[in-house]
Amino acid sequence: MNAFEQHESSVRSYCRSFPVVFQQARGAELITRDGQRYIDFLAGAGTLNYGHNHPLLKQALLDYIESDGLTHGLDMYSAAKESFLETFHRLILKPRGMADYLMQFTGPTGTNAVEAALKLARKVTGRSNVISFTNGFHGCSIGALAATGNQHHRGAAGTGLSDVSRMPYANYFGDQVNTIAMIDKLLDDPSSGIDKPAAVIVEVVQGEGGLNVASAEWMRKLERLCRKHDMLLIVDDIQAGCGRTGSFFSFEKMGIQPDLITLSKSLSGYGLPFAMLLLRKQLDQWQPGEHNGTFRGNNHAFVTAAAALEHFWQDDSFAASVRAKGQRIAERMQRIVRRHGPDSLQLKGRGMMLGIGCPDGDIAAAICRHAFAHGLVIETSGAHSEVVKCLCPLVISDEQIDKAMDILDAAFAAVLSAQTATQAS
Amino acid sequence: MNAFEQHESSVRSYCRSFPVVFQQARGAELITRDGQRYIDFLAGAGTLNYGHNHPLLKQALLDYIESDGLTHGLDMYSAAKESFLETFHRLILKPRGMADYLMQFTGPTGTNAVEAALKLARKVTGRSNVISFTNGFHGCSIGALAATGNQHHRGAAGTGLSDVSRMPYANYFGDQVNTIAMIDKLLDDPSSGIDKPAAVIVEVVQGEGGLNVASAEWMRKLERLCRKHDMLLIVDDIQAGCGRTGSFFSFEKMGIQPDLITLSKSLSGYGLPFAMLLLRKQLDQWQPGEHNGTFRGNNHAFVTAAAALEHFWQDDSFAASVRAKGQRIAERMQRIVRRHGPDSLQLKGRGMMLGIGCPDGDIAAAICRHAFAHGLVIETSGAHSEVVKCLCPLVISDEQIDKAMDILDAAFAAVLSAQTATQAS
Amino acid sequence: MNAFEQHESSVRSYCRSFPVVFQQARGAELITRDGQRYIDFLAGAGTLNYGHNHPLLKQALLDYIESDGLTHGLDMYSAAKESFLETFHRLILKPRGMADYLMQFTGPTGTNAVEAALKLARKVTGRSNVISFTNGFHGCSIGALAATGNQHHRGAAGTGLSDVSRMPYANYFGDQVNTIAMIDKLLDDPSSGIDKPAAVIVEVVQGEGGLNVASAEWMRKLERLCRKHDMLLIVDDIQAGCGRTGSFFSFEKMGIQPDLITLSKSLSGYGLPFAMLLLRKQLDQWQPGEHNGTFRGNNHAFVTAAAALEHFWQDDSFAASVRAKGQRIAERMQRIVRRHGPDSLQLKGRGMMLGIGCPDGDIAAAICRHAFAHGLVIETSGAHSEVVKCLCPLVISDEQIDKAMDILDAAFAAVLSAQTATQAS
Amino acid sequence: MNAFEQHESSVRSYCRSFPVVFQQARGAELITRDGQRYIDFLAGAGTLNYGHNHPLLKQALLDYIESDGLTHGLDMYSAAKESFLETFHRLILKPRGMADYLMQFTGPTGTNAVEAALKLARKVTGRSNVISFTNGFHGCSIGALAATGNQHHRGAAGTGLSDVSRMPYANYFGDQVNTIAMIDKLLDDPSSGIDKPAAVIVEVVQGEGGLNVASAEWMRKLERLCRKHDMLLIVDDIQAGCGRTGSFFSFEKMGIQPDLITLSKSLSGYGLPFAMLLLRKQLDQWQPGEHNGTFRGNNHAFVTAAAALEHFWQDDSFAASVRAKGQRIAERMQRIVRRHGPDSLQLKGRGMMLGIGCPDGDIAAAICRHAFAHGLVIETSGAHSEVVKCLCPLVISDEQIDKAMDILDAAFAAVLSAQTATQAS
Repeated sequence: MNAFEQHESSVRSYCRSFPVVFQQARGAELITRDGQRYIDFLAGAGTLNYGHNHPLLKQALLDYIESDGLTHGLDMYSAAKESFLETFHRLILKPRGMADYLMQFTGPTGTNAVEAALKLARKVTGRSNVISFTNGFHGCSIGALAATGNQHHRGAAGTGLSDVSRMPYANYFGDQVNTIAMIDKLLDDPSSGIDKPAAVIVEVVQGEGGLNVASAEWMRKLERLCRKHDMLLIVDDIQAGCGRTGSFFSFEKMGIQPDLITLSKSLSGYGLPFAMLLLRKQLDQWQPGEHNGTFRGNNHAFVTAAAALEHFWQDDSFAASVRAKGQRIAERMQRIVRRHGPDSLQLKGRGMMLGIGCPDGDIAAAICRHAFAHGLVIETSGAHSEVVKCLCPLVISDEQIDKAMDILDAAFAAVLSAQTATQAS
Repeated sequence: MNAFEQHESSVRSYCRSFPVVFQQARGAELITRDGQRYIDFLAGAGTLNYGHNHPLLKQALLDYIESDGLTHGLDMYSAAKESFLETFHRLILKPRGMADYLMQFTGPTGTNAVEAALKLARKVTGRSNVISFTNGFHGCSIGALAATGNQHHRGAAGTGLSDVSRMPYANYFGDQVNTIAMIDKLLDDPSSGIDKPAAVIVEVVQGEGGLNVASAEWMRKLERLCRKHDMLLIVDDIQAGCGRTGSFFSFEKMGIQPDLITLSKSLSGYGLPFAMLLLRKQLDQWQPGEHNGTFRGNNHAFVTAAAALEHFWQDDSFAASVRAKGQRIAERMQRIVRRHGPDSLQLKGRGMMLGIGCPDGDIAAAICRHAFAHGLVIETSGAHSEVVKCLCPLVISDEQIDKAMDILDAAFAAVLSAQTATQAS
Repeated sequence: MNAFEQHESSVRSYCRSFPVVFQQARGAELITRDGQRYIDFLAGAGTLNYGHNHPLLKQALLDYIESDGLTHGLDMYSAAKESFLETFHRLILKPRGMADYLMQFTGPTGTNAVEAALKLARKVTGRSNVISFTNGFHGCSIGALAATGNQHHRGAAGTGLSDVSRMPYANYFGDQVNTIAMIDKLLDDPSSGIDKPAAVIVEVVQGEGGLNVASAEWMRKLERLCRKHDMLLIVDDIQAGCGRTGSFFSFEKMGIQPDLITLSKSLSGYGLPFAMLLLRKQLDQWQPGEHNGTFRGNNHAFVTAAAALEHFWQDDSFAASVRAKGQRIAERMQRIVRRHGPDSLQLKGRGMMLGIGCPDGDIAAAICRHAFAHGLVIETSGAHSEVVKCLCPLVISDEQIDKAMDILDAAFAAVLSAQTATQAS
Repeated sequence: MNAFEQHESSVRSYCRSFPVVFQQARGAELITRDGQRYIDFLAGAGTLNYGHNHPLLKQALLDYIESDGLTHGLDMYSAAKESFLETFHRLILKPRGMADYLMQFTGPTGTNAVEAALKLARKVTGRSNVISFTNGFHGCSIGALAATGNQHHRGAAGTGLSDVSRMPYANYFGDQVNTIAMIDKLLDDPSSGIDKPAAVIVEVVQGEGGLNVASAEWMRKLERLCRKHDMLLIVDDIQAGCGRTGSFFSFEKMGIQPDLITLSKSLSGYGLPFAMLLLRKQLDQWQPGEHNGTFRGNNHAFVTAAAALEHFWQDDSFAASVRAKGQRIAERMQRIVRRHGPDSLQLKGRGMMLGIGCPDGDIAAAICRHAFAHGLVIETSGAHSEVVKCLCPLVISDEQIDKAMDILDAAFAAVLSAQTATQAS
């Protein structure tokens, strides 16, 4: 029994899929204690968009630490925070016509940013009900968990998960069913039983839910629905944001203006705990300290986040490279689909948030195991864990992509041919 | 309007008391961008027990980053985690007869560790009600907030805070009232209306609640009450733990064995986001990933935490120094009390978790303002923010203590004599 | 200001539509203090299926009272209860293949029977979530109100209405949308966010919701859904039961076996407060007195209810007459629709639970006002109070029906022509 | 197996203590089908203050039924209701300085009146929390059940019971502990964790809770507490009202003015289902029909209730006789206490709401069984069912009292001597 099994709770999970001890990491590579290298197609579940330990960010962080830069200061003013505020405003908000958004630094977890968003929406509107969607994932603290769909997590709540009305996501009932019209009918009907909501919380691409994609049109309709029924629109961009879909926010160019936006995961750029809520200025009805937390405003994260913004987001070139790589991966995946299961496999996702839907979770798990055995760290998502999910660093090289896709192709081949063999016998 | 006022939400709070921009920090000192130095008697609300940027921990962190040590790996096995697990077990758990406790790394916020503790207690017992105490503070995400007493935070919930029965803390109704006997009567009575609880969650010293102290005897009675009524005992040691009271855990030497212990704040030793739930092995009924979070297991924190344990907790010498310094501070505070308000002021707390209770929050705030103007960062706590709270780094020098106490003494003198003058006029 | 306005709370409602003082009533007629007669098309919102003060039931009640029969005895054994138990079993349950259902006498209100049904379903399954439907009405005490859709009532809860998932009723999204398939997909999906339900509660015809009708096929599919997902099927037959739809239960001949059935309203036959929960024997997991209430088991109601069963339910003749009268009313209504608004009006309902859907609630209200001015007591239902609802006693004569329909016809004519005139001008 | 066991749910309870079939009843007597007579010291748990089938009320009811008086009319105006409104105002409210209270007829169950009271208090104040007391009983529908203390009933809720803070009743912690001061401290403390309440709901004598009595002084303090903290005072007088304590309301002469008062049980005077909420005029913020129910306003009950008021409440003579009989019963009980257990038994209650506290529930149950075998129907109450509760009709004769007390005396003798014998052996 190793130290982990001996001392750590059985709640540990990813380590069960990848039972090796990682020690170092660079870019898209994970390196174990005994020097084995893996291509990382998990990327901290979307936390490592700029790769592991990016040299520029690393240097900025080292410099800051060397200088005895303030590490922890609650939500006091710090030079590092000021620099981040200014940089995020200049490089992200302003160019996107979002100059009037304010930033709130919540506890450094995605779930805490969601808790803050839900609290604020309820406070501003004076209503408690919130609409969230099938297959949505928003975190595991009780306030956020109420909005999360996953039964594995909901079942562990131990207390009521209330004040959330669940609605069908885009295409949940197939391409022919307009789920926005359904919601509109329910909200128009004073005896539908759906209490007037404070807000809608939505992911533009559902990461944990299985790489389900909402179209720009659906998002626009959703925004109009929000305006019609006086609900706030919360975009949870924790996994899909920070460049993952080929633009900084997942909803760019869709023509919508969310009222509240949650960011975390790749926001620090270096894998450091960090979370932020963006809010339109007129919604800033917080009393000082009303929502708080010891680690809100992680200064190390301010430093790396600002450096990442300066490096990657001065212009569209990085985003363009993401779109190009996304295209490359999608083509390789499309080939896998065609080759190994044109009828049973399905390309899912958008940008560099892609995956292949398999017939069931056992198959997807077997494919990931096979891939790991050949040097690729990759995981599943989806209601039945049936989607093999490719969430590699956005800075990955074409060579690494190709190598990873070769491994994946072989894994699909091995598992699906075994599968076919079993069914035949 | 500065960048903070321009871009940050009005939820920001500590910066309102200390409107300067901090840039560096060392030990017990905070340094502003323009070089002004402050003694830090806030210490990240208990996060900086080993001071700011402790050189040993700093070096360990720099080395780790230099070597491209894994920064973010979800809950995968990492060399840094293994080292922490082994070190915490060897230096903390084992010597305290707690070898059978397991560690769970939750999202890196105290509130998330509390959410995990409450979930697990409810899961293991199959019950939903939890007892928490008057003036208790356990965090602001909805699950933890239900257990928190503070109305300022509760009022922002926006949704029901349920499944918590509130009970009077030690001495809440005065020294003569045995609050444990009261709770016992309520739990013995099948029509008291208090549903059988899954657990009791308690702070041994209530930090935010005003430095209220539970005696060893009260804690033992509470543990017996838990055993009698088959409730789990959760000690929230997030603020009082990691040496603050003169021992690693706040409940050491009390002769009790909590079932679940939450730690965060000073656990990383360096102010990095980090949180952990300790659980007795037989309670480890988690399914893999049932409670999760992107930043559970912050590797930078593993590194600094392990280094801090090695440096400070090899033997009792550091704890002894904390007790001695606590004594020194208490004596100086006692002198302030005698000098400026033997009837109206009150020494509160334990170890180096000390404060002076003032007649009201306005006085306490005025004292803190005066102290800040003279170079001391210090804040209030308590139901009415009426306690001037001294929470300096445990590594502070005697000279710094004396200097800070001089500033504080002058602040009490200035404010209380002004006060007396006002009343006389 | 009359005595009512002077002494009664403003919560009073029906009296606002019919501002006269009723003193006597016989069959389908209401008689005011000054002798004015009205045909009753409201019938106690479905409570007076056998008409007001039916002579046979009246005699049975007078005899019982004369003999000093036990009036109130909590849930002690009484001769009157025994007689009811035996009669209901013999005349209702046994002939319908429901011999294994048990009877529970709850507090004598429909909402209390619903509370009991929900409690029992949750107790038996150990789950808390319950599915209820859009436009469903199940009562106004908090447990039942959570399942009720109407916002007017929900808005007065003042506390959380939780543990209910709202689903679309039959044809809610139009004839082309299979709402059962939608629910099935949500329940099959472990990350839909719909927690596994204890039960489904449904009305076969939604009375308050606007006379929406579920087909036999939809009900069968719903039952199959319940079996597949291990949920109990609760039919709330409080308004649609006791003969209203042309059979004793509204779901007869549909080929389904509900697990729990709530009855109230017309169950006593005489307008006396009375309510009952029918439950399959294997679900009878109640502890003695677990759900209780002072007036459970109203002996006067046992007497009239048993007499009503003996008189009306010995064979199918009464039910057949209901179906015939329902046909007669439907034909008259269909004529009204064709005459006054073939495109804008809509015949709704089933059996003698019929109504005409109007373009909006103002029109429907105006029609009811006009009818009342001409001797017909009639009300609206529906999400927007847009359905003119005909709920006359089942014992009404053909002459009374014709007279009432003439009044109604004239009311539609008057209101809709005025309406057309207004629009034209 | 009799018809009851065969067809009725196992939730039936009182019949288990009294396994005979009652058929008739007069005054304080219950008569079985085979002519056996019992003195009724249960009185419908307080529903039969004027005895069974009182001849005057009976005649009024018979006349009303004979005349085809309106039986059921929802909340339409009826002559019977008008008469009740006028009579209750004239004989009860006005003489007691309560002329500005309005009446609301809720569903005819006590629990429904409580639901209405809680809804209205929450609506008027805009707050959701409500204070209720240890050992309080307010009903079993979910809204009321949240305020009820009894675990047997709470355990069957199956859904969350929230928005109630439980506080210690008068003398709950002994005579020396001022429970009002405790509550005051909790409400004054902004971090006590007790959210500002909308209202306090209290019984002046706790019937089901074990005949616990609040003194006039405690009630006055409670009212002052309500005024200080801007909470509404709800007196639940369902069991203790209608003359039971020697005055119409249980709180008369205490010098308090509750904001809301619930009445039910003996209000109809004849054991008919009936319930009413009294509310101060300025609190009447209901929208029409916001809280509703099919059987609100039971006309038969209006008739008997008005007749009872005219007969019993024209002057103080009836109340005086209640006080005298209460005295007589208390003296006999005191004798029982002195004779059979001066140390272990305890006289409890007030007026004609009296009982003897026994060492445990088994003893109390044995005493009731023995009494029943000798012709006395009597039950227990209290947290452990340890109080033998005497709740006879207020119209009982002195002879019947004496006879019943003889039976009770013998029962105590038999059970306690057997008890002593067992302990000795």
